This record gives sequence, structure tokens and C-alpha cells, in this order.
Amino acid sequence: MSDIFKKHIAKFAQVTDDEFQHIITFFNTKEAGRKENLLEQGQLCRHHYFVLQGLLRKFYINEKGTEQTTEFAIETWWLTDNYAYENQMDTEFCIQAVEKSTILYITLEKQQKLLEEFPVMERYFRFVYQRAYAAAQKRIKFLFSFSKEEFYFQAVRNHPEFIQRVPQYLIASYLGFTPEYLSEIRKRIS
Amino acid sequence: MSDIFKKHIAKFAQVTDDEFQHIITFFNTKEAGRKENLLEQGQLCRHHYFVLQGLLRKFYINEKGTEQTTEFAIETWWLTDNYAYENQMDTEFCIQAVEKSTILYITLEKQQKLLEEFPVMERYFRFVYQRAYAAAQKRIKFLFSFSKEEFYFQAVRNHPEFIQRVPQYLIASYLGFTPEYLSEIRKRIS
Repeated sequence: MSDIFKKHIAKFAQVTDDEFQHIITFFNTKEAGRKENLLEQGQLCRHHYFVLQGLLRKFYINEKGTEQTTEFAIETWWLTDNYAYENQMDTEFCIQAVEKSTILYITLEKQQKLLEEFPVMERYFRFVYQRAYAAAQKRIKFLFSFSKEEFYFQAVRNHPEFIQRVPQYLIASYLGFTPEYLSEIRKRIS
Repeated sequence: MSDIFKKHIAKFAQVTDDEFQHIITFFNTKEAGRKENLLEQGQLCRHHYFVLQGLLRKFYINEKGTEQTTEFAIETWWLTDNYAYENQMDTEFCIQAVEKSTILYITLEKQQKLLEEFPVMERYFRFVYQRAYAAAQKRIKFLFSFSKEEFYFQAVRNHPEFIQRVPQYLIASYLGFTPEYLSEIRKRIS
């Protein structure tokens, strides 16, 4: 299973088999059940998660008491509350497995040691953060440009497999809809 | 002036004086006048900008024909349309100097060569993107959590110097207000 991580590193940086055998020792593996929380609101944000298989989401409870999902992470995506992780603070978010998932995770201390011992991993993480940042910038423009309805139509057009994969109530939680309203919109499309 | 860049690198990575003399040759410097456009909507996004002195903003023209500002960059901040820059595509954004500004800029090709010749700069850019990504994640949560009015009040409380520095019509353009509406809110505070 860790082969998925090895291949992902190889997309961005050159790491030998021997080096990878060392690199992987900085990580732990976890099998998370469906709806299992990896991190809860108010906890110290200790880990950075890499999805080998499955699907995670990050959400918080908004002022209306409903779950606002802000991010999903599928295979080969990293996920954490980055600000809280880097500053070793309590998080305002919850990270939950949407499906049964297999996860690699690392602590900040170990990630820093990994980068000191294997400077080639600076290149890997530079690419990871660079792409995540570009995606977040695109997301911010989307949030300004499109109504929630338009955003849903775009997602259905551009990421049909993803929309199929994620339970509808979580798509609603990502868009800030009630599940009832989302099912109305879906009727309108079909 | 390039000393500002040298100090910024030193916050994240160890670079000798000799190395820095080499590194800086990958960049060009530009003096931009107030309201000068560095990049215009529809142009190929060729450059990554670093602010030595002054203030830049990034905006696009929304469907109502008004300027929606999505980012500001002050001293030691990097700015570009990252997705378009990385993929060498036309941009949907305009980047403009808000004040008379002094800018370093680099092309993607030169940035890639810089990273090959000076791998220590991978560490520098890893930190740059990592922090920018964490800030963008915070921004996304803000966009979900707060009304535009609350966002303005938070900004006044947390970044009073910045709110003083930026012309009010650009604060309005960032928040998605009309300038008239912003001046109403300001009256309510005072």
C-alpha cells in the first residue's frame, strides 16, 4: 500500500528504493472506519494526513450548529488544519473518514526531521504545498464568482465520479445547502 | 533594496553571501508606478512577483463588470496567479501596484533553474507556499463563517495599519461592497 506514496513522491522528486525505505519509517499507518474522526474540534492538531486509499473530509460546526465541510481529500491528497499544525495549536476543525480509509500520518517534529535528513523531500513538499495553494486560490475565486447552485452544476460537469462517490448530504455540507435543497436542485437538473 | 529579499530567505534557509549574489541574478527588478498594471486579464502569466517595497493587488472583473480584489501583497509577500503561472496559461486576473512599488520578478523557467542550481531554495519556497496555503485555508473558513460586515470589523481590529494604508475603495473591492456601503458601515463604527 505504501507504494502509492512512493509513486506520488516519484512524480516530483528522485528518491531511491533505499531512501524510501528510510523515509517511510517517519510515518505511521492507520485504518480508519467510515465516519471515524481522526481529529476533533478543540484538540491539538498533531498530524498531517496522506490518503493511501479512501476519502477524508474536514469540517467545522458553524454558528447555526451545522457541519460546514471545507475540504475533501481523496487518494494521494494531504490533509490537515495547516495553520494549527504548523503552530501546534488546537484546531477549530474536525477531520473524519467519509469511507473506510487507509492513511499515512506524520507529526510536525518527525516531518521536520525527515526534511533535515532527506533534503530531497523539500522538493516533494514544495510541490505539494504549491499545488494545494494554487487550488485554494482557484477555490477563493469560485467562492466569489459563482452562486452555490452554479458551483454544484460545475462540480457535476467537471467531477462527475467525485459527485457520485460522496454522499449527497456531504456535498450539501460542502456547498452550505440543506440536504433537502440539494435534492430539489438535483430534480431540476434531471 | 535586494537586502530585503536576502533577509527573507534567511528566515527559512541558510544561504551564504556568495550564493545570494548568484541567486539574485535569476531575478529582475521593476519600479511600478501607482495603479500600474504588471499583468492584465487575458495575458500569459509569465511572472512570479516578490514585493520589496510597496503594495500590489490581484483582481478580476466580475459578471457585474466591477473589480473583485482577491488578494493584496505587501513587503516580502509573493504574488501571482499561481495556477496560470505553473501551467503557463493566460490569466483571468489583473495584478496592479496600489502604491509606487519596487518588485523582484522571475519567470517559471528561471525559477526552475534556480531550484536546480540551488536546492536550498526548495526549502525557502516550500515555506513560502506552505504559509501561503495555510493563509488561504484560513481565508476560505472566513468566507464561510463571517458576513462581509463582520469580516471588515475583524480586519479593522486585527490589521488596523493595513486598513489605514489601503484606499477605502479597494477595501470595498476586496469585501465585495460598493464604496458607498463601506462608508455607511464605517459611520456605524465611529
